[in-house]
Amino acid sequence: MSARVTVLTGGVGGAKLVEGLQQIVPGTHLTAIVNTGDDFEHFGLPISPDIDTLLYTLAGLSNVSLGWGREGETWSFMAAVKSLGGEDWFNLGDGDLALHVLRRMAKDAGQPLSEIVRGFARQWGLGLTILPMSDDPVATWVRTDEGLLPFQRYFVARRCEPRVNAIRLEGADAALPAPGVVAAIEAADMILIAPSNPWLSIDPILAVPGLRQALERRNAPLVAVSPLVGGKAVKGPTAKLMGELGLSVTNQTIAEHYGELLDAMLVHEGDPQPSGLSFAEADTLMNTARDRHRVAIAAMDLAERLTR
Amino acid sequence: MSARVTVLTGGVGGAKLVEGLQQIVPGTHLTAIVNTGDDFEHFGLPISPDIDTLLYTLAGLSNVSLGWGREGETWSFMAAVKSLGGEDWFNLGDGDLALHVLRRMAKDAGQPLSEIVRGFARQWGLGLTILPMSDDPVATWVRTDEGLLPFQRYFVARRCEPRVNAIRLEGADAALPAPGVVAAIEAADMILIAPSNPWLSIDPILAVPGLRQALERRNAPLVAVSPLVGGKAVKGPTAKLMGELGLSVTNQTIAEHYGELLDAMLVHEGDPQPSGLSFAEADTLMNTARDRHRVAIAAMDLAERLTR
Repeated sequence: MSARVTVLTGGVGGAKLVEGLQQIVPGTHLTAIVNTGDDFEHFGLPISPDIDTLLYTLAGLSNVSLGWGREGETWSFMAAVKSLGGEDWFNLGDGDLALHVLRRMAKDAGQPLSEIVRGFARQWGLGLTILPMSDDPVATWVRTDEGLLPFQRYFVARRCEPRVNAIRLEGADAALPAPGVVAAIEAADMILIAPSNPWLSIDPILAVPGLRQALERRNAPLVAVSPLVGGKAVKGPTAKLMGELGLSVTNQTIAEHYGELLDAMLVHEGDPQPSGLSFAEADTLMNTARDRHRVAIAAMDLAERLTR
Repeated sequence: MSARVTVLTGGVGGAKLVEGLQQIVPGTHLTAIVNTGDDFEHFGLPISPDIDTLLYTLAGLSNVSLGWGREGETWSFMAAVKSLGGEDWFNLGDGDLALHVLRRMAKDAGQPLSEIVRGFARQWGLGLTILPMSDDPVATWVRTDEGLLPFQRYFVARRCEPRVNAIRLEGADAALPAPGVVAAIEAADMILIAPSNPWLSIDPILAVPGLRQALERRNAPLVAVSPLVGGKAVKGPTAKLMGELGLSVTNQTIAEHYGELLDAMLVHEGDPQPSGLSFAEADTLMNTARDRHRVAIAAMDLAERLTR
């Protein structure tokens, strides 16, 4: 019998771990609970960057060189928008637009995000369950030396350049876990936190009260895969952000951030280990499918060790 | 002083005449009043086929080989929509989507269609005034042997194959002329009807009561350019439709259809002439820019002759 695995994840880095898990765990036993704090509306269309990155990665459609969006994408829409004087700070690929336009239609017809995502995953033949953390809107805001910025303004338009003082998760307090989220936590034999940004990608998930409570009363072990490799983040602003928040860029800091939730951490081989916590080491860089398989195995082994 | 020209037009054929007029008449003196009976919503986006064909044609962006849409278009959106199980009977090009997405946003922000189109035309540096016949919704329905079909279902999905018994213009009675329409008719030195389908493209314009009344009380001569060449329509279902409505496919039928509104008709050289009506002949095929210039000159000359 394969273990039931539930993983909390953001976008790019997290999607790689989920792809590794997908190689090992049957779809019926694998659930990804995905950050929607980055979601926003652009050109009147609802964009779910982390969910879409997961969909593209797992369907084998992701653009590996860009690190976001679709492989073989075309850009006629953005060129035409620009010629019409429209905003061009956030690039929407032509193929990518399909998710957003169909999501707009489905939302307008009253479908919650979780149902819409289930439909997309089914159409692309994905066996696992992909759940937004909540069907309610939660918006990540970043307080910076340039003022309070919505996440995508900070992340895309300003390329993470402003110094961050604090992060605000608007709507999180009132958000309910999406249908299936609490059940996926309760039924899990192990729960993983993907190597996504703890502050920007995982915290919004943990900030949904009903979801957090389900994690707190869980039976299954909870293992985080550290996003740090050699004291740096593989991609994105994790290390820069930790410095700006006055934190040392270490696995110890991340372990303390997750606090009592965490049972163990998988760290990159040779990196300083967190103290007062079970851990294991592995090469956690995940460029190839084989890398992803290795990291998934290592994380699951660590979790299994805890249940023995 | 150049004459002030106002032209009533549908899509492809009409856009060619307007392009010819654009070569001769300064933008300040040229107004196109465009059919919006073909407008519909698709993927939750508002599509204005005739207005968009005019925009693309006059901006030099139209796809000459397809006869609709944009030159150099890509189709990633439709491919992705199809992979997600979405409808694929109506093709929306990637670049073309920009007009529809921006129009959706502007409409949702409360802008009327006439203002939106003015913005597009300005962005593309078009000097003439392009006006929808009305900012109110008017929908062309076609009663066929397969039942009552919305225009695009008949025209695109069913490729004009069903036999037509009657045409219904939903909402026309209650529609007001768009701002500027009546003024453009009153100020015109000549009014032209483009060689568009009289029943499907021009009738919806004439069915807007305030617009029709302005035409009836006008001072300027009104000249129609016949859509028939050698007893056939150059493109589209005009001749087939006339046959199904029990009409002979002649300039005489079209002249009688426009009735008392019409002062004169420009017909293709050698084609049977309408009786009881001023007319002129020209080669009315408009493949090249030069052809379009020639037909525009011929139509304006005919109108000018009437005012002498």
